[in-house]
Amino acid sequence: MKTFRQATAVDHDLRADLDAQWAVGDKLHGGYLMAVLGRAVAAVAPLPHLVAMTTTFLRPPAPGPAGVEVETLRAGRTAGQYRARLVQDGEPCAEALVTQGTLDAAEPYWSRAKAPDLPAEQDCFRLPANAPGSPFPVPLLDVVEHRHDPAVLGFAAGQPSRDGRVAGWLRLADGADWDPLSLLIATDPAPPVSLTLGVTGWAPTLSLTAYVRRLPVPGPVRVVMHSSEITSGRMDEIVEVWDDGDNLVAQGIQLAAVRV
Amino acid sequence: MKTFRQATAVDHDLRADLDAQWAVGDKLHGGYLMAVLGRAVAAVAPLPHLVAMTTTFLRPPAPGPAGVEVETLRAGRTAGQYRARLVQDGEPCAEALVTQGTLDAAEPYWSRAKAPDLPAEQDCFRLPANAPGSPFPVPLLDVVEHRHDPAVLGFAAGQPSRDGRVAGWLRLADGADWDPLSLLIATDPAPPVSLTLGVTGWAPTLSLTAYVRRLPVPGPVRVVMHSSEITSGRMDEIVEVWDDGDNLVAQGIQLAAVRV
Repeated sequence: MKTFRQATAVDHDLRADLDAQWAVGDKLHGGYLMAVLGRAVAAVAPLPHLVAMTTTFLRPPAPGPAGVEVETLRAGRTAGQYRARLVQDGEPCAEALVTQGTLDAAEPYWSRAKAPDLPAEQDCFRLPANAPGSPFPVPLLDVVEHRHDPAVLGFAAGQPSRDGRVAGWLRLADGADWDPLSLLIATDPAPPVSLTLGVTGWAPTLSLTAYVRRLPVPGPVRVVMHSSEITSGRMDEIVEVWDDGDNLVAQGIQLAAVRV
Repeated sequence: MKTFRQATAVDHDLRADLDAQWAVGDKLHGGYLMAVLGRAVAAVAPLPHLVAMTTTFLRPPAPGPAGVEVETLRAGRTAGQYRARLVQDGEPCAEALVTQGTLDAAEPYWSRAKAPDLPAEQDCFRLPANAPGSPFPVPLLDVVEHRHDPAVLGFAAGQPSRDGRVAGWLRLADGADWDPLSLLIATDPAPPVSLTLGVTGWAPTLSLTAYVRRLPVPGPVRVVMHSSEITSGRMDEIVEVWDDGDNLVAQGIQLAAVRV
C-alpha cells in the first residue's frame, strides 16, 4: 500500500500515477485528486505552502497515469496564483485555481473559531472500507482512517441522524503527520452529509474550495462538516479541520449535486 | 449613472466597459468584476443561471475597456463548467471557474439555515460613499446601497465592535431586483470584517467563492458576514445572503490578505 506521499507523487514532467486505493466506490476521491494537483503546483511554485485551492471536477479519471499542467497566473512576493489541470488520455479531468504562500504556526492575530466538541478518538467508530450493506466499498478508508462521532453513524443502521452533520477524527494510515497537501483530503471527508439525511445516492462534487490556514501540529485532526441546505438539486457542505492543538488548520466548502 | 445591467454588459465579442462607479477607493470591486465575468459566461452557456463561481484576483484592472475570454471545460446536461478570464491591455486581471445550471425558487428539500436576526431596514444605517474621516471614498456605495446593523458600525466612530461580523441590508440603487449575477456583489459586501476589528489597512481578496442557491424574491437582501480567524496574515470571510422571503439565496467565502 502506498503512502500518501507516494500516492500523490509527480515526476519532473508533472506526471502522476493515480492510485486506485484513494477511491470512493470506483471513483477516485476528490481530495486525493486535489492533493495530486497541489503537489504539482508545489513543484513549480517558489513559495512553499498551498494556501487556497478551488477545484472543479470535470470527469472522473481512472487509476493509472495522468498528467498535470500548471500555469503561473501571477507570481507575487507573498502569494502566487496558479492554474492546475489534471489531464488523462488528452481529456481534462479536473481544473483548479491555487494560491501558494507561506503558512506559520503562530497564534492567530484574532479568532472566534471554536474547537469542536467531539467524543474522544477512542470512543469514536472507525468506518470500514467494506461495510455490510454498503452499496460499494470505500478503499479510501483503508488509507485515511475516519473515526466518527457515534451520533453521526445512524445512517449505517438505516436510522440517519437527519441533523446534517458529519464529525470525526482523521489519521493517515501510513502514520505520516498532516501537512498542507494532505489536509486537502481532510476537507473532503466521508460520508457526504446527504447520507446522514437518508439520501443514499451519489453526490458528485461540482466545485470544492479549501483554505489551509496554518501548519498543523502532529497527531490526528478533527473534522466537522455540515450542510446549510439542499435546494435546487444541490447541497453545500462546509467543513472545519482542527489539529490536536485545538488550532483551526483548514476550512472547506463544496457544492455537490444531489438527486432527491 | 449606469444600471447594474448596463455596467456589467458585454458585447458579442465579450468585451466590457468597466465602470469606475463600482469601486472601493480606486480599485474596482471584486463582486462587480465577478458579475462581469458571470455575464460573459451566461452569454456562452446554454444553461441559464450562475450556480458557483470562484475567482482569483491577479491585478486590479482600470475602469474602461476589458475583454473576457471564456473556455468551456465541460458542457453537461444539468451543469456546465467554464473558465473565464478578465483581460485588459493583454494582461490577465482575474480568472474564474464557473458552474452554470438551473436555479428554481422551490422549497428546499432540507435546510438547517436560519435567517439572520437583523434590525428592520429603516433602523439600519446607510453607509455613505464619502464618509468623514474615511481614508478613501467608496463609490460602490452609491450604486449598491448598504444599510448596516448599527451594532456593526462602531468602526466609523473609532470604536470597532471587535466581534468579527458585518451585517446589513443591500439594495441596488437602480431599483432592479436581485438576480444570480448581482447576488455575486452581495457576496462581497463592504466593509471587510477586518475593519470591525480595528485593522484599517487594505484587505485584498486572494480568492472568492460564491454559490447561488436559489432565485431571489423581489426586495432587499440581507447579508451576514463573519470571519473565523486572522492567521498567517490572512483572513477568511464567510457570508450568507438572504432574500426578503427568508430564503438563503447565496453563500460566499473568501480569503483575503491582511497586514496586522
